[in-house]
Amino acid sequence: MSLSSQDITIFLLCVAVMLFFSRTIGELLRKWKQPIVIGEIIAGIILGPTLIGALFPELFKNLFQSSSNVNIVLQGITFLAVVMLLLVSGLEVDLTLAIRQGKTASLISLMGILFPFVVGFLSAWYFPQQLGISNSELHIEFALFVGTALSITALPVVARTLMDLNIFKTEIGFLIIASAMVNDLIGWIIFSFILAMIGKNSQGFNFGSTIVVLTIFIAFVFLILRKVIDFILPRFEKITTYPGGVLNLILVIGLAGAAFTEWIGVHAIFGAFIIGIAIGDSAHLKEETREIIQQFITNIFAPLFFVSIGLRVNFIQNFDIGIVALFLILAFVGKVIGCGLGAYWGGMNREDSLAIGFGMNSRGAMEIVLGTLAYQTGLIQEKVFVALVIMALITSISSAPLMSYFLKRSKRKLNFSDLLKKENIFFTDVNNKKEIIRELCMFASQKSKLNFEHMYKEVCKREEQMSTGLINHLAIPHARLKIQYPFVAVALNKEGVDFDSLDGEKSKVIFLLLTPQSEPEIQLKMLAEVSKKFSTKEIVDELSNESSIDEIILKMKQLS
Amino acid sequence: MSLSSQDITIFLLCVAVMLFFSRTIGELLRKWKQPIVIGEIIAGIILGPTLIGALFPELFKNLFQSSSNVNIVLQGITFLAVVMLLLVSGLEVDLTLAIRQGKTASLISLMGILFPFVVGFLSAWYFPQQLGISNSELHIEFALFVGTALSITALPVVARTLMDLNIFKTEIGFLIIASAMVNDLIGWIIFSFILAMIGKNSQGFNFGSTIVVLTIFIAFVFLILRKVIDFILPRFEKITTYPGGVLNLILVIGLAGAAFTEWIGVHAIFGAFIIGIAIGDSAHLKEETREIIQQFITNIFAPLFFVSIGLRVNFIQNFDIGIVALFLILAFVGKVIGCGLGAYWGGMNREDSLAIGFGMNSRGAMEIVLGTLAYQTGLIQEKVFVALVIMALITSISSAPLMSYFLKRSKRKLNFSDLLKKENIFFTDVNNKKEIIRELCMFASQKSKLNFEHMYKEVCKREEQMSTGLINHLAIPHARLKIQYPFVAVALNKEGVDFDSLDGEKSKVIFLLLTPQSEPEIQLKMLAEVSKKFSTKEIVDELSNESSIDEIILKMKQLS
Repeated sequence: MSLSSQDITIFLLCVAVMLFFSRTIGELLRKWKQPIVIGEIIAGIILGPTLIGALFPELFKNLFQSSSNVNIVLQGITFLAVVMLLLVSGLEVDLTLAIRQGKTASLISLMGILFPFVVGFLSAWYFPQQLGISNSELHIEFALFVGTALSITALPVVARTLMDLNIFKTEIGFLIIASAMVNDLIGWIIFSFILAMIGKNSQGFNFGSTIVVLTIFIAFVFLILRKVIDFILPRFEKITTYPGGVLNLILVIGLAGAAFTEWIGVHAIFGAFIIGIAIGDSAHLKEETREIIQQFITNIFAPLFFVSIGLRVNFIQNFDIGIVALFLILAFVGKVIGCGLGAYWGGMNREDSLAIGFGMNSRGAMEIVLGTLAYQTGLIQEKVFVALVIMALITSISSAPLMSYFLKRSKRKLNFSDLLKKENIFFTDVNNKKEIIRELCMFASQKSKLNFEHMYKEVCKREEQMSTGLINHLAIPHARLKIQYPFVAVALNKEGVDFDSLDGEKSKVIFLLLTPQSEPEIQLKMLAEVSKKFSTKEIVDELSNESSIDEIILKMKQLS
Repeated sequence: MSLSSQDITIFLLCVAVMLFFSRTIGELLRKWKQPIVIGEIIAGIILGPTLIGALFPELFKNLFQSSSNVNIVLQGITFLAVVMLLLVSGLEVDLTLAIRQGKTASLISLMGILFPFVVGFLSAWYFPQQLGISNSELHIEFALFVGTALSITALPVVARTLMDLNIFKTEIGFLIIASAMVNDLIGWIIFSFILAMIGKNSQGFNFGSTIVVLTIFIAFVFLILRKVIDFILPRFEKITTYPGGVLNLILVIGLAGAAFTEWIGVHAIFGAFIIGIAIGDSAHLKEETREIIQQFITNIFAPLFFVSIGLRVNFIQNFDIGIVALFLILAFVGKVIGCGLGAYWGGMNREDSLAIGFGMNSRGAMEIVLGTLAYQTGLIQEKVFVALVIMALITSISSAPLMSYFLKRSKRKLNFSDLLKKENIFFTDVNNKKEIIRELCMFASQKSKLNFEHMYKEVCKREEQMSTGLINHLAIPHARLKIQYPFVAVALNKEGVDFDSLDGEKSKVIFLLLTPQSEPEIQLKMLAEVSKKFSTKEIVDELSNESSIDEIILKMKQLS
């Protein structure tokens, strides 16, 4: 059997149309600050039986359903696309970053998986009909699937949202990314076990042996292959043409891993993802190589997959308001409360915890990959698939505005004490106003990675308008900068520095206060709080005579 | 119909094995200075029925012939690969470069197509049986095909060979590249007409209307679409995400063009190639975009296509020594004599003309694409296909050594007169030895793009050992540099410069002679020739009193 000329014409046309629509609608949505993947999925729904298929059934049929050969080829290509997409997603995962984020990140990822998983599992276990179970023989598998579906997070969408909100490189940003990475990894491992359970494989593995082989595979990739890749990558780069050789190597290992996991009865993309993590972990992987693979796959292949989602199903006919509403509620409840609790227990305030919860709530790409697999293996029916896609879209679209809302509230509720950090306090002997401001800015720019020149200029400008030396041995030079989060640094000088204070006394405790330009009220609030907090000369004197920073921060925080 | 888990496992494994083998053997051959594509084709022959298929028939069958679904998907992907390969090849074609090369390039491309085409056509017309015609009803089509097959040149392989010989940026290098571009373009246009003739299309176009539509398409792409692309590319880049948007745009236009030519009954790759040229022509196409597409396609997709060649046919069973020998002879005769004559008529010497002939003889990638199409449409039988592949391999492999041999011979036969060029002669008032050497070197480095510092240092070093002022008002400062081709610049000073000549006279004609380090004999030969040529004081005096450079070069060349 081979492709006819007509097959080829239609095949090429399909690919061109899919790429064109996904890009056009993706770019449109990008203008409204939505991740491009949302547009790609919507493009598929428009092109598919839901809209164009319903309005122009002939056109749709001629293009996407004319020949079984074309369908098989498109299936093969979208399949390859999703395998490569997961390979690239794996490359982006940086486990060392996740480990470095420590306790709070662990709590967020743990709760961000455990809680939604339990919520999903129990709901599907006790209310399978309401959640649209298709095959009552697969009751436990269905419940496990719903649990996993609720606990997954879409790393690329989350990263994109953080960048749009300009908080990618903040503490909260790192926390979310690190948690999402761990979340994804564990979610996929659980899902691979479910796939092994429903045993769609034809190689005669039983559940037990699949699990054993899978565990050995994961251990092998992380413990041995990861190191082997790190060892051979630079050597391979030397003896082969760059970047061709390395590009090839990555794909060969990735596809071999994918074939292996598919063979043992777990899905191919799991192998690709795990191997992607192992390769991305190598410090020898050049940025240029990563860039070539990433750009080509996310821009050419991934859209083909995401568009193909909408081509499969009629989203109007299979829209069941009950199932959609349930999945939406469970998704929000599970993830936001789960991650939120994790963050809260990790020491964040309530608003920040909620912001993290909504940040982790994006299901985007990953949910859809998962749903597609479950749909293809017969684990879920069309209505549930549609509900999952809609849930993925809504959780992703709502993520940025909700996060941003809670971050703003968090900032508004912020106390001056919250901004005081042990590591931002230092003693100094500098006793000249200009010099000490310079020292504080230098210190702050190192700690906060903000540009020194600009910060120093702004603080001096403010200082020239009117001195910031207050009464009670206090001074509080300040500026509003293009930052997301306020920042305070403290310099202590036992002798005092002449700050042209109102009471003529020297300043012994000098706060540098940097606040977001976009929210002037924060600055006012903080300045008022400082005056209130350090209301007598004695308080400040006592502080400046302390010699342990631990004591100082403790006392400062105790002041009401 | 959909892909089973087993299909998927095998499909992924096939792709991984194909990529792995093609890269391994490609890199091995690269060590022997062969283009990587040669290795990819050989990898396919090894993996296919010729070797592994013959030795381990079970293994081969399980991997590459186990399921018709997998075969269809692989067909689809290799098809997409070859379409994208031609799109990228089109991007590399720079028609303005070709036009700038002028008369000689036109003669080379014209003769490089016409002569082999006529040789091929007549041979196939009068000896169809000996050349392995399969269907006597297609006598004229077969003859046209053989003509085209002989007249095609593989631009990427040629470029690679020139780079390996380190003559990519020389005059001969540019000539060859420019001719190969024109050659490819015309060759493909002819072939597209043949495809239209054999009318494999099912859209009901007859030959006449296909030709009309095809001509309109070509005119549209070059006259209108080219300008439209140039206009929208920078605007598109601004409003979409870079580089994703542009990557997408290129593929959408390319695939749409491919679908269109396929639809009218010409092959899809022709449309992709033509559109590639139109896109590559835009000065707004960024190098980074080109790089991402090019690297991904040539390293991941193209190998899949080239490996798949060997998987189709048993090269031993279908090896017919008579057909192979005939095709080889016709290929060499047609191309080498054709291009050689073109170059010779364009004013090159015999050795250089032959070098150009062998340089253009590489059939590599393009011949194989052409052969595959002809084989798939039933125009040629397996034996001819095998002969074409072998011919492509041998012409490509032999290209570099044969070129290099004739270039060396050409240099050895070089006369001093050949090196004198009107544009390298100038008058000067500088009358200090050191200064005039400096001026000559500056002038030479501008004309030849050689590094000034190094050249000047080497010339001075030689000058310090012993003055290069000869008798008869002559001086000839010289040096041996890492260059491929000798270079002469001439400075004329009517008053003369003191060069410490043997006869105490001032030097009025000063030659700067730069020769290849690797061939010391050239320098000796040239120096001897100069002494012989300018054997009396009167000759040199007369030359230096001329005021027209045209006259000077004429007189110099006339001296025996």
